Amino acid sequence: MSLTVESVGERGLIARLRCRAGTPPDWVALGIGDDAAVIQPKRGSVDVVTTDSLVEGVHFRREWSKPQAIGHKALAVNLSDLAAMAATPRAALLSIALPLSLSLGDFDELVEGFASLAERERLPLVGGNLTRSPAPLVVDVTLIGTAHPRRILRRDTARAGDALYVTGSLGAAATGLFHLRDGTPRSGLDADGMACINRYDRPEPRLTCGVQVGRNRAASACVDLSDGLVDAARQIADASGLGVVVDAAALPVHPGARAFAAAAGLDATRIALSGGEDYELLFAVGPRQLRAFHAVTARCGDLCVTKIGRMTRETGCWLAIEDRLEPLGEGFSHF
Amino acid sequence: MSLTVESVGERGLIARLRCRAGTPPDWVALGIGDDAAVIQPKRGSVDVVTTDSLVEGVHFRREWSKPQAIGHKALAVNLSDLAAMAATPRAALLSIALPLSLSLGDFDELVEGFASLAERERLPLVGGNLTRSPAPLVVDVTLIGTAHPRRILRRDTARAGDALYVTGSLGAAATGLFHLRDGTPRSGLDADGMACINRYDRPEPRLTCGVQVGRNRAASACVDLSDGLVDAARQIADASGLGVVVDAAALPVHPGARAFAAAAGLDATRIALSGGEDYELLFAVGPRQLRAFHAVTARCGDLCVTKIGRMTRETGCWLAIEDRLEPLGEGFSHF
Repeated sequence: MSLTVESVGERGLIARLRCRAGTPPDWVALGIGDDAAVIQPKRGSVDVVTTDSLVEGVHFRREWSKPQAIGHKALAVNLSDLAAMAATPRAALLSIALPLSLSLGDFDELVEGFASLAERERLPLVGGNLTRSPAPLVVDVTLIGTAHPRRILRRDTARAGDALYVTGSLGAAATGLFHLRDGTPRSGLDADGMACINRYDRPEPRLTCGVQVGRNRAASACVDLSDGLVDAARQIADASGLGVVVDAAALPVHPGARAFAAAAGLDATRIALSGGEDYELLFAVGPRQLRAFHAVTARCGDLCVTKIGRMTRETGCWLAIEDRLEPLGEGFSHF
Repeated sequence: MSLTVESVGERGLIARLRCRAGTPPDWVALGIGDDAAVIQPKRGSVDVVTTDSLVEGVHFRREWSKPQAIGHKALAVNLSDLAAMAATPRAALLSIALPLSLSLGDFDELVEGFASLAERERLPLVGGNLTRSPAPLVVDVTLIGTAHPRRILRRDTARAGDALYVTGSLGAAATGLFHLRDGTPRSGLDADGMACINRYDRPEPRLTCGVQVGRNRAASACVDLSDGLVDAARQIADASGLGVVVDAAALPVHPGARAFAAAAGLDATRIALSGGEDYELLFAVGPRQLRAFHAVTARCGDLCVTKIGRMTRETGCWLAIEDRLEPLGEGFSHF
């Protein structure tokens, strides 16, 4: 019989977490183990704080995603929020509600998924909370980031005439979720299909891109695509008191999403517009920022950016298809 | 039929939260509504961050506790962690996983319980997260506090010979929980019994006391009593590499706990030692700090402090009963 989290107990689990977390950097005055963690703020900077949770049965299923992927994703979705603010992550809190039947191996894997991404981003785990759960596994992450106060990217500061740019590609995570739901055997998937599952399971926060665009003031506004492009475009438009036009033909649809849509008789554009969890960034870029924006994003490794629309003075959200405008539709709601 | 959280939807709920949260102070550069919140750190201070969650069926039951009490308690237990570090709370994040069947009235009451305590402590709600839950209600709170770096109270800095002091009284919350479990009718409870239920439902974080003791360097170490006195004493002893002797006769047992123990044939001392959730503070106070400690705590309103033991050079945790020493026993585990 394999060990469960119950058999190891709270202190045993905290000891395992602490061991995996390693030695924090010197600006962490007090890490895991006290009533709270103590962090030295960066001089001349502001704190940028965010929290987001993954709930079993709502955001993931253990039949579909391995514990490592769940741990990775719980951190990645929060890093994406900081990326969208152009903030550099500085410290993480990890709070988990654990079903008592969870195996110790699964707990360790979940921690490993979280810790290896944290390590890559040089992000110390400074505290958190472990409790039992009567049913679902719930992973709640809080991040404290830092940024220069005038280099932050907000969502309510877009201007009419700004161009809209999105990083990477769209529809991959939604396609990955379709494959997982349908139980498509992985042997039946090509590299693009596998990339979609991987995007769903292990989203890649666009930290370098967000931070560099913010530092260089190369965009007027930004949000991340947690709930899909339509939702993100609406968020920028509503918050800025503007309208938006998205150009259907310009959308960088992921090839795996395109292939899946063709095979399933679905509209690839709709998947790219409404599919959530791609965790790309959507920027509003002013005419005088374009040059800097392209210079900065060209330095962000392989990550491409695509112009997909523009902000308009008249409110209303539209999709341009060939010569006509259609309503953009509604974004995703968690309820 | 009454409205549920599902019928209002995520944005409607966020709008309600935002409305109740009111206008944040000017050091909150960006509050609810963006990908993350932006806070101006206090100059010359460190950030003190903590997170703690309440899970339905583990930490509370909706049959026993009203939504207002749940909201209050979710914040109070986190404030207690900051109090134990001598940190002043500065900003809160509130993350709730909501069963879709939760009535809108209950949601509003929960928010009200949280917000009225936050208001009293002048603590702005700057962000958070709402998601649905397949089963239990989960309330996760993160607080960012501030303190002078050399005025923080840790748990690993007690010294041999320090006296142990506890605030307020012990065993009240555990007694309140007994009454709720037993379904004792409130009409059958006297004022002390009602006070116990109230302590369980609406714990009172000892913020002023913790912060003042820290500012005046009037203690060498501190923890809060979330999991009972035995656990707290062990935490200080283990972290500081010391032992501890608790004096049974000195324990400030709450009169409601004493009356309940007498009626139920239980040991009042055991309830005071092991009963969790009193959220009092336990201080280790050095001989040269005693004068300042008493001067400071005398200014903390009606809150009394009681000397209940001492830290010893030899490791081991003991209970002094009359002339003999007994092992102190184990603290509470969440698993």
